[in-house]
Amino acid sequence: MTSYFSDHANHPANLICDLCRQFYDNNWVTGTGGGISIRDVDGPNPNVVYIAPSGIQKERLRPKEMFVAELPEKILRSPNQDNDKEQISPDLAANFKYKPLACTPLFLSIYNLRDAGAVIHTHSQNAVLATMIWEDRLEFKINHQEQIKALPKLELNTKTGRIEKIGSLQNHETMVIPIVDNTPLEEDLTDTLTETLQKYPGATAVLVRRHGIHVWGENIWKAKVYNEAIDYLLELAIKMHQNGIPLIKE
Amino acid sequence: MTSYFSDHANHPANLICDLCRQFYDNNWVTGTGGGISIRDVDGPNPNVVYIAPSGIQKERLRPKEMFVAELPEKILRSPNQDNDKEQISPDLAANFKYKPLACTPLFLSIYNLRDAGAVIHTHSQNAVLATMIWEDRLEFKINHQEQIKALPKLELNTKTGRIEKIGSLQNHETMVIPIVDNTPLEEDLTDTLTETLQKYPGATAVLVRRHGIHVWGENIWKAKVYNEAIDYLLELAIKMHQNGIPLIKE
Amino acid sequence: MTSYFSDHANHPANLICDLCRQFYDNNWVTGTGGGISIRDVDGPNPNVVYIAPSGIQKERLRPKEMFVAELPEKILRSPNQDNDKEQISPDLAANFKYKPLACTPLFLSIYNLRDAGAVIHTHSQNAVLATMIWEDRLEFKINHQEQIKALPKLELNTKTGRIEKIGSLQNHETMVIPIVDNTPLEEDLTDTLTETLQKYPGATAVLVRRHGIHVWGENIWKAKVYNEAIDYLLELAIKMHQNGIPLIKE
Amino acid sequence: MTSYFSDHANHPANLICDLCRQFYDNNWVTGTGGGISIRDVDGPNPNVVYIAPSGIQKERLRPKEMFVAELPEKILRSPNQDNDKEQISPDLAANFKYKPLACTPLFLSIYNLRDAGAVIHTHSQNAVLATMIWEDRLEFKINHQEQIKALPKLELNTKTGRIEKIGSLQNHETMVIPIVDNTPLEEDLTDTLTETLQKYPGATAVLVRRHGIHVWGENIWKAKVYNEAIDYLLELAIKMHQNGIPLIKE
Repeated sequence: MTSYFSDHANHPANLICDLCRQFYDNNWVTGTGGGISIRDVDGPNPNVVYIAPSGIQKERLRPKEMFVAELPEKILRSPNQDNDKEQISPDLAANFKYKPLACTPLFLSIYNLRDAGAVIHTHSQNAVLATMIWEDRLEFKINHQEQIKALPKLELNTKTGRIEKIGSLQNHETMVIPIVDNTPLEEDLTDTLTETLQKYPGATAVLVRRHGIHVWGENIWKAKVYNEAIDYLLELAIKMHQNGIPLIKE
Repeated sequence: MTSYFSDHANHPANLICDLCRQFYDNNWVTGTGGGISIRDVDGPNPNVVYIAPSGIQKERLRPKEMFVAELPEKILRSPNQDNDKEQISPDLAANFKYKPLACTPLFLSIYNLRDAGAVIHTHSQNAVLATMIWEDRLEFKINHQEQIKALPKLELNTKTGRIEKIGSLQNHETMVIPIVDNTPLEEDLTDTLTETLQKYPGATAVLVRRHGIHVWGENIWKAKVYNEAIDYLLELAIKMHQNGIPLIKE
Repeated sequence: MTSYFSDHANHPANLICDLCRQFYDNNWVTGTGGGISIRDVDGPNPNVVYIAPSGIQKERLRPKEMFVAELPEKILRSPNQDNDKEQISPDLAANFKYKPLACTPLFLSIYNLRDAGAVIHTHSQNAVLATMIWEDRLEFKINHQEQIKALPKLELNTKTGRIEKIGSLQNHETMVIPIVDNTPLEEDLTDTLTETLQKYPGATAVLVRRHGIHVWGENIWKAKVYNEAIDYLLELAIKMHQNGIPLIKE
Repeated sequence: MTSYFSDHANHPANLICDLCRQFYDNNWVTGTGGGISIRDVDGPNPNVVYIAPSGIQKERLRPKEMFVAELPEKILRSPNQDNDKEQISPDLAANFKYKPLACTPLFLSIYNLRDAGAVIHTHSQNAVLATMIWEDRLEFKINHQEQIKALPKLELNTKTGRIEKIGSLQNHETMVIPIVDNTPLEEDLTDTLTETLQKYPGATAVLVRRHGIHVWGENIWKAKVYNEAIDYLLELAIKMHQNGIPLIKE
């Protein structure tokens, strides 16, 4: 029987727990909102992805509470199968059934379409507020900020049909993040998102109005850096708006 | 003699200390404002509840400083009875007398009326400010936010006369939290609150104007998640108000 | 030779270090701004007071870096006398000379006039901003807030000539904190402050315009609670002002 | 072979890691934005400087990831030379090439022109927002604030041609920080900065518009204190602006 876990600090299941604690302190995930998924890019099977469970205190996650899937969409392991369930989290009632994050189909879709190494989903208030301040827009755009350099320059390689990273954005260039409308069920976002990913080959994130943001990258460290930079820019944009400063400098 | 304490990290007396430290960092409780009470739902007597003491540094609480009560309203144990009092908290003068939180009758009332597993009371500035921005209203209402999904859908079962959780709110539904006026003595809030609980079977929280909020749930983890989600929505609502965005979307 | 230090976590020299770290995280003290002084009220000589040094990273203080004084105003011990100075703080150049906080005369004055057990001085931006928003006023006043209950009700006992605590403020009562103007030298504040303490027997704090706040209490835990409550109320007052809500409710 | 590392907590390579973690929590550096450089002023060769690498998670830096240079501008050691590279950071792909911070020439320039002991570069939103609120100005100026006292009074000694610290600013004096425009490449800032350093002998920091701030001092502890005080004043200035309070009091 394969083990999906390891003591190594950088194993995906351990990193998800570690980063969820850090993101909780950053107000990006709350007890039940938001989540992280990591693909085991350096492991024996790079199509294996780890996904945080739904409805669990994000700052108290444990590695064995993870779901494990194989791309494109097979669930390999559920924490409910674990004989040793009470060990997983003593906070839960004995009859508790783990569920994967509601955004799991959406995460898998991003892995499949973008060959991503990790996907981060936050309910950051900077993301949510920005989609309401600019409620009539379908894109969030900002330019002339040093922090923009942290973001990747992506391009569709028309020969291979894949999106490739060809460098970083320059600080005077415009970062564009598409905004899609929220849906009653998180599962229903998948179609809209798929369409948007195809329409915006340069995007490394999608804002969901009155909901939050999905950010991905070639590995978890890149995804984390993109998420930090985008959240910084969203926060700054809101302050600029409140001080009457336009986001786009001609 | 029964012991009311245990080394188990999830024992109510230990969890109250742990979460008070976390809530202090979140600015929900201060040195003396706010508090937590947990019912020993998985213990030998599920009518036993633990209540934090009043006037003690919330981020430095120790398990043996808790009061223990039995529902509906008997005090079983006071930290003043402890022979080993100096061990409880070396911060206190020798003649210090512990008092239970002033909101104890109110907490017990919520346990009795709602069959709750835990009650959280915070002085969060988001709660206090919202009750002043909307000073003329008796309800705080917001809809069309993903975070609303974290909250329970409650309904009065007319056969049993009990409030039952029948699912979660949907993101387009309206979360309603009643607002009651503050009283000079915290004890006097109990009558108003009892009335309000009966009038609002769907509520899992009550705002107290210029004071704070009481949030409850079927166990401490649910109460914590509800409190996080409500505080997030109150904070967001204030930012929406400051940016001219209505809280209710038609 | 008397030792001014101890391993006990609640010894004044240890508590100053511990609380300075906590206050640094709360943004009340910075590398060199603000400070804490504690009187050894439970020690062999209750007129001994410990005072943090000036110009030292507040979040990295060590117990042996404290100055020790005896009321009314004798310096008993300076960290410069320590033979083992390099052990005190390896961060300092070999020829570094410790100086007590510039507000030391002011601290001693508060101890002498109010029989205080501890004095806290912060550069909290809530305090500084409030003194500028209400630049033309000589008092900061707010009422009808639950948090006001954390503050003491003080009265001059005309027989003994001492200020006595006769209870706590009620939530509908008005908290009054006098505001004095800043002076080029911190030492020069002492006269103004002395005058103000006599004029305001009910005050447990004084705001210094464009500078910060001094808060005191019968012991360090009370002083800490008063400081937390006042800072909370100053922060709330600024938000109320920005939302057009008057601080005084008729 | 010389070792550039040590177990001592105050060794430059260790301090950079320690302070980057602290600055990450203060929101001054993010995953890849900002950085710290420290000169080994107390070491065998006081012209040796340590520089954080570029593009590495700032809150997870390890000492052996540092670049080491000798003033005026020779690189002595790169983390890429380390045979034991995988030990440095298990987060990195095997073929990862470390690069020194893009602002390295700028850091070296500050060391050479100002005889500094440490340089801090942050992307603090207070710095960035201030340069946009006052987009048409070439200087940030504020006076009559107690926190100004934390900053050095610097003067050109016309005999030696060196900038010397002759004391601290007084609280009624005006702190002046020049603002330079950002450039597409961080390397290109060096010329503008050199010019500005010569024009402003009294400055201990330079703001870069829509980018961040560079702060230096005679050693890392002073640089840290100056950075904290300046960031405090920038944050306060933005709040003053939003409340209609002028930064300069006549």
